[in-house]
Amino acid sequence: MLKAEIYITLKKTISDPQGLTIKHALESLGYKGLQEVRIGKLVTIRLNTGDKKEAKKQVDEMCQKLLANPIIENYSFKIEEVK
Amino acid sequence: MLKAEIYITLKKTISDPQGLTIKHALESLGYKGLQEVRIGKLVTIRLNTGDKKEAKKQVDEMCQKLLANPIIENYSFKIEEVK
Repeated sequence: MLKAEIYITLKKTISDPQGLTIKHALESLGYKGLQEVRIGKLVTIRLNTGDKKEAKKQVDEMCQKLLANPIIENYSFKIEEVK
Repeated sequence: MLKAEIYITLKKTISDPQGLTIKHALESLGYKGLQEVRIGKLVTIRLNTGDKKEAKKQVDEMCQKLLANPIIENYSFKIEEVK
């Protein structure tokens, strides 16, 4: 079985109000020196296959078709064998 | 400057309706052999400090106090130097 971990982040030029809110919340808890907080998504998919090359192709397609919005988001992923 | 990437995931025993919905959506797009889809959060924090040890302590605290809900979520993070 393979596990794909997909990291979806907003592009640098897109503002991230959720991140800003969390930054302010952290500051109000006393944390200083925060330059930036950005929020993204982490999608974990377990695939019933052992074919890493095919899985890589599929996961890339899934990101483009459904998981990420390529206009405002970047994505990257890693695929590893799990038992 | 340091960058912390924080990965927040639901604990195994907690059901993930959002992940289930995405699993069904992927299946309706024709992807077979999906065992499980789980959704988590990815928080990226840029810190104005070079002290990795202190940053690690702070980020761990932030996770426990605000970013993650330790009752239903696990978290892990990595910290790296960025320019």
